[in-house]
Amino acid sequence: MGVTIAIDCMGGDHGPAVTVPATLSFLRTHADASAILVGRAEAIQPLLGDAAAEFGARLRLHPASEVVAMDDPPAIAMRNKKDSSMRVAIDLVKAGDAAAAVSAGNTGALMAISRFVLKTLPGIDRPAIATVLPSMKGHTYVLDLGANVDCSAEHLLQFGVMGAMLVAAIEHTERPSVGLLNIGEEVIKGNDVVKEAGELLRNSGLNFYGNVEGNDIYEGTVDVVVCDGFVGNVALKTSEGLAQMIGAFLKQEFKRSPLTRLMAIFALPVLKRFKQRVDHRLYNGAPLLGLRGVVLKSHGSADAVAFGNALSRAAEAASNRLIERISERMASMNEVKA
Amino acid sequence: MGVTIAIDCMGGDHGPAVTVPATLSFLRTHADASAILVGRAEAIQPLLGDAAAEFGARLRLHPASEVVAMDDPPAIAMRNKKDSSMRVAIDLVKAGDAAAAVSAGNTGALMAISRFVLKTLPGIDRPAIATVLPSMKGHTYVLDLGANVDCSAEHLLQFGVMGAMLVAAIEHTERPSVGLLNIGEEVIKGNDVVKEAGELLRNSGLNFYGNVEGNDIYEGTVDVVVCDGFVGNVALKTSEGLAQMIGAFLKQEFKRSPLTRLMAIFALPVLKRFKQRVDHRLYNGAPLLGLRGVVLKSHGSADAVAFGNALSRAAEAASNRLIERISERMASMNEVKA
Repeated sequence: MGVTIAIDCMGGDHGPAVTVPATLSFLRTHADASAILVGRAEAIQPLLGDAAAEFGARLRLHPASEVVAMDDPPAIAMRNKKDSSMRVAIDLVKAGDAAAAVSAGNTGALMAISRFVLKTLPGIDRPAIATVLPSMKGHTYVLDLGANVDCSAEHLLQFGVMGAMLVAAIEHTERPSVGLLNIGEEVIKGNDVVKEAGELLRNSGLNFYGNVEGNDIYEGTVDVVVCDGFVGNVALKTSEGLAQMIGAFLKQEFKRSPLTRLMAIFALPVLKRFKQRVDHRLYNGAPLLGLRGVVLKSHGSADAVAFGNALSRAAEAASNRLIERISERMASMNEVKA
Repeated sequence: MGVTIAIDCMGGDHGPAVTVPATLSFLRTHADASAILVGRAEAIQPLLGDAAAEFGARLRLHPASEVVAMDDPPAIAMRNKKDSSMRVAIDLVKAGDAAAAVSAGNTGALMAISRFVLKTLPGIDRPAIATVLPSMKGHTYVLDLGANVDCSAEHLLQFGVMGAMLVAAIEHTERPSVGLLNIGEEVIKGNDVVKEAGELLRNSGLNFYGNVEGNDIYEGTVDVVVCDGFVGNVALKTSEGLAQMIGAFLKQEFKRSPLTRLMAIFALPVLKRFKQRVDHRLYNGAPLLGLRGVVLKSHGSADAVAFGNALSRAAEAASNRLIERISERMASMNEVKA
């Protein structure tokens, strides 16, 4: 019997219209997985078709009467919406009924509720959010992208451990390499926190590469890039903006005249293959790390393809003992210290 | 009579082979500008051809016997190489013989020497380095990209003033809009320093837009994006890495088979136009701001086209009273305070 994923069907910009079809496709391609659709039955039921016949016990609907809005403050979502689809999905992980939860809802609320319900693992002060990005050599995992804006060196060390264990679980890499995001060698090398974090990582027993710079994310220099949540957010959003601009410029140039439009038709198959390679939907599904349970955040605007990738990543993390790997590693580090 | 630019001919990966031809082209396109070539006469002279006849008094050679190496520590470059081409070029600005200096040498040394020789403007605690990037709407200026890794809110305010005055001088924008780089609204909005800087900028009399995110750099939401040097460096290097990866992927897809190679030939004119639009050489020449003189840093690997753009930008900044604009603005802000 494979893993069971609890899905917050109501979250995200499109709600059940995306989450339900994505779940059905996921069940078709993951024959040993099961899914629990969490949310308002009246919104989910009409989208199921003959799924009950197709999947039998592999698909369940678990009603939840409330919905966390994209602009709900995390504290309000947590205290006042105890029957939200987001909360109930995480409760199912806590109860052991699901191995992972996936939500496209409000990031702040998801983090607050996950932390409150699941609690952090021993030795982890703050959960982090990781993302996967394409690189010249494959994939690079970057963390933190969450709310950890003022990090200590110890926090950055913990991010390193969590990121390495994530890559070990999802990519089946034996000893993932970890880099610490820093600034150019020409100038003073980073602030005191980063320098101290470098020392801690060097002595951590992880496969620590040393300092890396922003360009190393896409060059694929290391498997995991560690930074605080402020820097990680800026790196990610800057990348999104640049990719959009490049795409828009390419489109504009190919639309400039009838002749260039003709060229676009010739080049289309190539441009399509290129687009598939950098398709951000491939990289959807950001794990919340450091919790006593697997939770993944999907982009709010995800379509069914993107949401499906988040579901697959959740199944991969849960079936490859992500939580156990992190807690074992933290325990062995603390033994060395003691 | 136009401006005179002092050129550190020995700096950068290519030295005089790039800096001298770039200067000659610059003089051809800027009929009212003059140039002082600073460096070893024996390295520069052979590259001049009949430039003496062509430019007359507009071109001078000023000998300097030493060269700052790319890996010289700033303190060593400053103390032990008083006759370096970098130092002498900045001395010429200090003496009033040149209106601006341009160097493709070691950034740390350039900043240290500029600061030591020229001093900072009244009210400016730390000089900053700005860069210009392409955006959907034109250009965005980002600062700091220098060594200011631990900034106070006051420093960020000063960067805002310097950036706005830079855009006023170079782009002739009346009241440039200024944004403060921060993280997504979904999560806690930034650390205490950024929050306080937002308050200061709101009350500064600048055309302050408010918080912006990484994607706004390329969307062109504001004219100037303010951040500390660590975050700015990461945003810039991440962008460089992503642009390189996208370029490499495009090339790989067009080279995949004889058929796609044929398509590339059809698409070539369009791809060339696209490439020109995002050509990083267009954006070469990063002003060091907050000093009592105009100094621009060229990328070390700049070719003659790129170095020429740095020279043009230096001439533009110097002839449009960059330094006076910054000091006037700082003075008026301090009057309000007093």
